[in-house]
Amino acid sequence: MVTDSADLSKGLNFGDRVRERASTIHGWLCVGLDPSMEKLPAGLSPGAAGMTQFCREIIQATSGSATAYKINFAFFEEAGAGGWRALEAVRSAIPAGIPVIADAKRGDIANTGRAYARAIFEVLGFDAVTVNPYLGWDAIIPFVSNETRAVFVLCRTSNPGARDFQDLETDGVPLYMRVARESMGRQTPGEIGLVVGATYPGSLRDVRALSDDLLLLMPGIGAQGASVLASIRAGANRHGQNALASVSREIIFASVEADFAEAAGEAAKRLAAETWRGDRAG
Amino acid sequence: MVTDSADLSKGLNFGDRVRERASTIHGWLCVGLDPSMEKLPAGLSPGAAGMTQFCREIIQATSGSATAYKINFAFFEEAGAGGWRALEAVRSAIPAGIPVIADAKRGDIANTGRAYARAIFEVLGFDAVTVNPYLGWDAIIPFVSNETRAVFVLCRTSNPGARDFQDLETDGVPLYMRVARESMGRQTPGEIGLVVGATYPGSLRDVRALSDDLLLLMPGIGAQGASVLASIRAGANRHGQNALASVSREIIFASVEADFAEAAGEAAKRLAAETWRGDRAG
Repeated sequence: MVTDSADLSKGLNFGDRVRERASTIHGWLCVGLDPSMEKLPAGLSPGAAGMTQFCREIIQATSGSATAYKINFAFFEEAGAGGWRALEAVRSAIPAGIPVIADAKRGDIANTGRAYARAIFEVLGFDAVTVNPYLGWDAIIPFVSNETRAVFVLCRTSNPGARDFQDLETDGVPLYMRVARESMGRQTPGEIGLVVGATYPGSLRDVRALSDDLLLLMPGIGAQGASVLASIRAGANRHGQNALASVSREIIFASVEADFAEAAGEAAKRLAAETWRGDRAG
Repeated sequence: MVTDSADLSKGLNFGDRVRERASTIHGWLCVGLDPSMEKLPAGLSPGAAGMTQFCREIIQATSGSATAYKINFAFFEEAGAGGWRALEAVRSAIPAGIPVIADAKRGDIANTGRAYARAIFEVLGFDAVTVNPYLGWDAIIPFVSNETRAVFVLCRTSNPGARDFQDLETDGVPLYMRVARESMGRQTPGEIGLVVGATYPGSLRDVRALSDDLLLLMPGIGAQGASVLASIRAGANRHGQNALASVSREIIFASVEADFAEAAGEAAKRLAAETWRGDRAG
């Protein structure tokens, strides 16, 4: 009897699914789908339909190199209700067995938080979501109440403004390190990973030093200036594991001509190879 | 020549529109639309269509008492693309001249932040939005680049978890006071207000002490335990102004029977009267 990969993935927690896929395809690349309408290649319709077609072709061309996908909600919401339909369609277009992260930066209290969690996990079918820690733990917990789901808590973001509040010293450590430490200490059914911008390699190293097991999502590579190689060096554990290098524009807009999918496929393949230091624990 | 209120409101900034409406209707009540599907009154369809009908009837019954409305995105997103269409319909059902706040708690970097701002202001037509400060100022600025729009930055939220990070001491002041002070110091075309939970009257008083002009949005009244009167006392300025008492469930679920709209209208009228200490500056 043949069991397909979708069945095998059931019951495994998010982190195990990511690690298993990384070992299988030899890479730690997360392909970010940020389909800004104004940047869609010539020949695609400018609205939700064009975004859907664009993302579908990108997914088809990159899925062999993607350990995970990350879908940025902003560019879909910008297209209104049609954009939300496109979001559903794009999520569904990702092959079973590849973990998908909702880059939605949600976070709200009590019953509102639970409604967001249902929207992202049950309605849209994502496997993980980025969440903002400012509201505190009771706003994060609704997203990790199921062992197959996970969150990436914003820790040190990739933007210049990350310094404004995340770096403030509290009890002798910057706020983001406090967020990191508390995230590690939580016992929840779902896994808690962290977002640490690749633009701050020193922060990446500090956070990684806390634990080999912590799953990191590293945005800020490519258009924002950080390199894959430097990010993996700073963010991966001693076995080269547990750090997803998230790349969006450098892949999806590798070409804005008719060959955009082919160019994206090549970029993803090249970048995925750069993320692989060999799974020394495997 | 007759000029209608929609035309008059153009060009006025958000805070002035709120203050003008408060003076006109004698109240500082913000009616929160949080249409949880599982709580909709009997007789309404359980999905997006029921949510739309529910909110439309609530709006019709409460608009005379509402200085502003606040729409909670989570309960619409929970209904998928149909929910997003319902969100558009509900926003449109609010009479011109009443300011409408998107309770979306957004916040993201650079071009992603700009896409969220376009979604909320240009596509959905909201006047203000709640934003999360954790990512820093460059994530807030895209929402206040237009003088007719405003943000309410999360400062001290109404939930128990607010203590986890917002209360941490940084340079001798809690993080939320730092957020408050920096928000006041910013010069932006759009107005920057703050979210301070009515469940923490001490925090409300501390934040209000910073300035009479600061516009506050106070959630946490009713179901979460705070009273309108105590909130206005702690949060309004010396003239009884600039603090919106945000009430959701106590109004919209005042009855879950066929008379829900009538009951909501009565609750809103009663609560709006409680917010009014007389506009001593007017």
